[in-house]
Order: sequence, then C-alpha cells, then structure tokens
Amino acid sequence: MAELSELGEFGLIKHLTKDIKIINEQTIKGVGDDAAVLDYSDEKIVITSDLLVEGVHFDLAYVPLKHLGYKAVVVNISDVIAMNAKPRQIIVSIAISNRFGLEAIDELYSGIHLACKNYGVDLVGGDTTSSKQGLFISITAIGGAKQEEIVYRSTAKENDLICVTGDLGAAYMGLQLLERENEIFKADPQIQPDLSGYNYILQRQLKPEARYDVCNYLNNNNITPNSLIDISDGLSSEIMHICNNSNVGCQIYEDKIPINDETIKMAEEFGINPLVCALNGGEDYELLFTVDLNDYEKLKANNQISVIGHITKQNQGTNMIRLDNSIMDLSAEGWNAFMKK
Amino acid sequence: MAELSELGEFGLIKHLTKDIKIINEQTIKGVGDDAAVLDYSDEKIVITSDLLVEGVHFDLAYVPLKHLGYKAVVVNISDVIAMNAKPRQIIVSIAISNRFGLEAIDELYSGIHLACKNYGVDLVGGDTTSSKQGLFISITAIGGAKQEEIVYRSTAKENDLICVTGDLGAAYMGLQLLERENEIFKADPQIQPDLSGYNYILQRQLKPEARYDVCNYLNNNNITPNSLIDISDGLSSEIMHICNNSNVGCQIYEDKIPINDETIKMAEEFGINPLVCALNGGEDYELLFTVDLNDYEKLKANNQISVIGHITKQNQGTNMIRLDNSIMDLSAEGWNAFMKK
Repeated sequence: MAELSELGEFGLIKHLTKDIKIINEQTIKGVGDDAAVLDYSDEKIVITSDLLVEGVHFDLAYVPLKHLGYKAVVVNISDVIAMNAKPRQIIVSIAISNRFGLEAIDELYSGIHLACKNYGVDLVGGDTTSSKQGLFISITAIGGAKQEEIVYRSTAKENDLICVTGDLGAAYMGLQLLERENEIFKADPQIQPDLSGYNYILQRQLKPEARYDVCNYLNNNNITPNSLIDISDGLSSEIMHICNNSNVGCQIYEDKIPINDETIKMAEEFGINPLVCALNGGEDYELLFTVDLNDYEKLKANNQISVIGHITKQNQGTNMIRLDNSIMDLSAEGWNAFMKK
Repeated sequence: MAELSELGEFGLIKHLTKDIKIINEQTIKGVGDDAAVLDYSDEKIVITSDLLVEGVHFDLAYVPLKHLGYKAVVVNISDVIAMNAKPRQIIVSIAISNRFGLEAIDELYSGIHLACKNYGVDLVGGDTTSSKQGLFISITAIGGAKQEEIVYRSTAKENDLICVTGDLGAAYMGLQLLERENEIFKADPQIQPDLSGYNYILQRQLKPEARYDVCNYLNNNNITPNSLIDISDGLSSEIMHICNNSNVGCQIYEDKIPINDETIKMAEEFGINPLVCALNGGEDYELLFTVDLNDYEKLKANNQISVIGHITKQNQGTNMIRLDNSIMDLSAEGWNAFMKK
C-alpha cells in the first residue's frame, strides 16, 4: 500500500473520495472545487458541527478507527435529526499525525462512508491535514426540513408529555467497561480484556446510532413534537436545556426512565446507581421531546418511545419524583457528585 | 477575569456568543439549539471547510491570536468568494489546550468577530473543546448565489483571458521574514526582531483579505468569469487545477505576473527568485479567473486585476513564456526545487 508521503495532499484527497457517489438531489456539486454547491430551495437548512479530539473524546487504545469514523458522523447527524430535519450532506476535516499510515486513514474513512451510506448522506467536502500530535475530526452536517417541520428546544408547552427514545446510560457504562479493561491490560498485557456478555453497552459506546427511525415514525404518524433535543450530555442536562429555553418546568418520574438490563448489571458491578448513568451519563444520542397530550395514543404503539413525565409551569421547578415519592430538583448541582464513585 | 474552569463549557459558549447580532436575513436561527437554521430558498448554497493546526499552519511565536482568528475566517470566506458566491455564515469549532486562558480565547474570538463584521457574515454555531496539546481551528463557511452566478474551476474556455487580482508571493515572503526573525530571537532573546520597512508583506501573511471587492466589481460590471479559483497554494498549482479540470491548456507571461516591490526586495535579500514566490508561495488568497476576450475593456479599468495570459487547447500544454522568451512547462515537477534556497 502506498505511503502518505508518496500520495501527497491532492493524491490523498483523490484516494479518499474516488468512490463517492452522490445520492441526494440537493447535492449539486460535491468534492473537487473551492466549495460544495447545494440546493435547498424547497427547504430550510439545518447545519451543525462537532469536533472530536483524541485523548479527550476518544482513546484509540480501545476505539477501532472504523467505529470512530462511524460515530463521528452519527453524532453530527443526531444534531440534524434533533431539529426534526433530514440529514443530507457532511463535510469532514481531519488532522492526523504521522504515526498514522494510509491504512489507518482508510479504516477511519471506511466508517465515515458506512455511516453516510446508512443514513443516506453525501460526503461533499473537507480538509485533510497533518497534526503534530493526535487525531482531530471535525464534521459539519447539513440537512433540510420545511419551516413548519423544524422543532426547536425552546418551544415546549405546559402539559406536554415528555418522551425519550430507546434507553439511557448504556453508552456511559460501555465506556466505564472499556476504560477498566484497558487499565488492566496496561498493567499486565498478558491479561486479555474480558468484554463478554456486554455487547449491548459496548455497541452503544462504540457504534451509536442516531434515532432517524423515531423521527420518521413521528413524521409518518403526523406527530410534530413541540420541542426536541438529542441526549448527548445526559437526560438531566438536556431536560434543563428544554426547560430553560422554553421557560417551563417539568416533572419526570424515576420509574419511567428506560434503562437496559445490561446497563443496570454493569452499573451495579461498578457500584454506581444506574439512574445516575441515565441522568448524567452522556453519549446516548437518544432523542428527548415533548408532545401534545392528544398525541399519546399514537405514541403508545412505538415501543422505542417512553413517556417519562410532563411539562409544568416554570415556577413549579424541574423535578423528578423518586421511587420513594421524594422529590429531587434536576437543577441541583449536588447531583453531579454522584457521578464518580 | 474568570477562569475557564469556573465558566464550564456552557458558560464559555455563552461568554463567546453573547454579543452576536444576526445581520443576514438568510440566518433564521444562530447559536443556541442543536443546529443553526438557514434560509437559502432564493439561492444555491456554497459551503466549504478548512482546518488550521498549530505548528503546521501557524506558529504562535509570531502570530498574534487576534490575527489568527481573523485569518482563519478569511481563508474560508475566500473559498466561498472563489465560487462567485456571497459569504453569509460561518461555524467555528475550536480545540484548545489548557495552556490558554480565557483572555487568549477572547483575543482569538475578537479576530473572528472582526472578520465576521468586515465581511458581513453571521457566526451561527460551533463547538469549543479541549485538546491535549495545541490549538486547532476548524471553520465552515456558507454562502449563496443564483445558480447561473456560480463559477467553477472546470469551465475555462479556449481563448479566455487569464486574470489574477492584487499581487502574488507577498504572504510567502512575510512568512520567511517572520520565521527568520523568530530564529534570531530564539538564539538570542536580547535581539529584538527587525521587521521595519516590511509592513506590506507582514500584513499579507498575518492579516490577509479575501477579494470580495473584486468579485463585487465583476458582478457590478456584468462580468461573469468562465472559471474561478482562489490562490491559496501558489499561482502555478491553481492554474494547473483550472487547466486539468477544464481540459484546456494555458499560456502565461512571466512579465505580466504582478509582484509587489517589497516582495521583490525581501526575496532578493533571501536569495530567492521572486517569481518562485508568486508561482509556488501560497497563502495569497488572491483570485485567479478566466473571462471572455470581450470583457477585456471592462476589466482594464480596475487596477486590481492583471491579465497574465490566455487559455489554449489542452494539447498545447501549460506554459509560461519567460523574460528571455524561453518556454517553461508549469506542470514540470522540477520547478518546486527552486522553492527552498
């Protein structure tokens, strides 16, 4: 396989983009000029960007490059979906140190291309450069929606039902498991990582998916949420964003928060309350949304949606009813202290 | 001044975005949700991204942070203008190590905000994260144009006049000067850098401008170039892009290539042929474009535009006529060897 230095910058770009086939009619011109050209004359544009940094957002000791490429795309697509828009294009910029060869870059891009394929997204541009140290991935995702379809985090209404998709806290427990096994491996490389029986939480950490399926379900059933956000930093933080931006309060119920059995099992092994993983764990990329009470019947049919509470007046606070019927304020700073053992 | 750790991520974002006022009607929603929302129903979208890496693209030993922020925006805006589009929005993602305090980040953003103001661009989103080492700036720029206004690099036509804006090679000589004085300073900190008399080449390196003025002149005079590209990697490389993408050849004339007196003086001091700076220097962010012969009279009036040659058939090659009437092939690899003394 050719080395990076032989290819040069233009050769590398050509190599990485040679198999790209444009699939969206909104993409007029992809890679190959000063800029990409898109057509969103029928829709508003939704655009977002995330930067992933080695040693901060991921550790290549236990994250395969292909998974990393996939996840880097998905976390951006999740932000487009969290506006109730359809993801259509991404732009990928990468800074990579010379410890990586062409094979490593190809692995990374194979994950990027797979995510593009799975979500029907065109890779339309970017930048590939060297870094002195570490791998940096900056992705911009672009999508579209009719003006009336776009859902903000600032428009939740009193009495709305609060819903979440899938289950919460699994990605965080997957990370804890990977970090623990990595520490054991570093201390004694003879000991092989023991990851058996935890496929679900590992997959949630290493290869998360954006909930395009649920957004499509809502749209197909004529349910437009009043507010919508994706859960990247934990349920608690995202509910607070909706309440603060919408000038409302909330009441959610601990017993309604969906947590997978594997998450619970691993949390208990670590001596962490599984609820803390769900509230503060992050990286779940599930959706949090609020809908009119009238939509309840239509929601019920989808087992990927859990109703966990309702929106209240702002002066009623942001509360969670615990299993023992005590009330916990979600905005209380002290809650974060439970996070670390 | 508050420290970064006190502010936290959300506090920092709030601090950096608190004074933003949206100025373009195409910006429906800027920072503050999962994604920005834009309206380009009347235009096609042009979108591009560049990643600047400390130690690769800039050296903070001699690049002030405010200038860096300004330049990072301008190089992206230049790519939008190089499609003959109007820049309207940027998204800024930054990874920064903990050796930088809030004051440094504010300096960087003051340059970013100044560039936004000067070019009439809205800052609509981004990401701020930490890095283990070094500063990384990833910017996505978005602009718009009517479909018929957009100009690609692949549509140059035989007999077109080849034009460049401003002058070439100055940014490269500014960099050489800064690097030389930095080396002298590192060897003996008692010796102060001697940068006097070289304001122009320093400004070209540290605070380049995108040639929006020339694009506006062309549009106001009903001149639509047949092909257009910005000169980020040196004239030679960009002409080759136009010729390769348009399946044409070119003939340019050494004596027509615009080079500033300060560039020539500094190049001679370094023992470099000034022509090499213009052909291979990079970072000038001038425009290279081709127009119909009929537009010549209208171009003449603008002293920021130089006609340097014309487009030929592809089989006539990519040639420069030297001062002594000899012919040099611009695609010849050997030329690059002149670059370093």
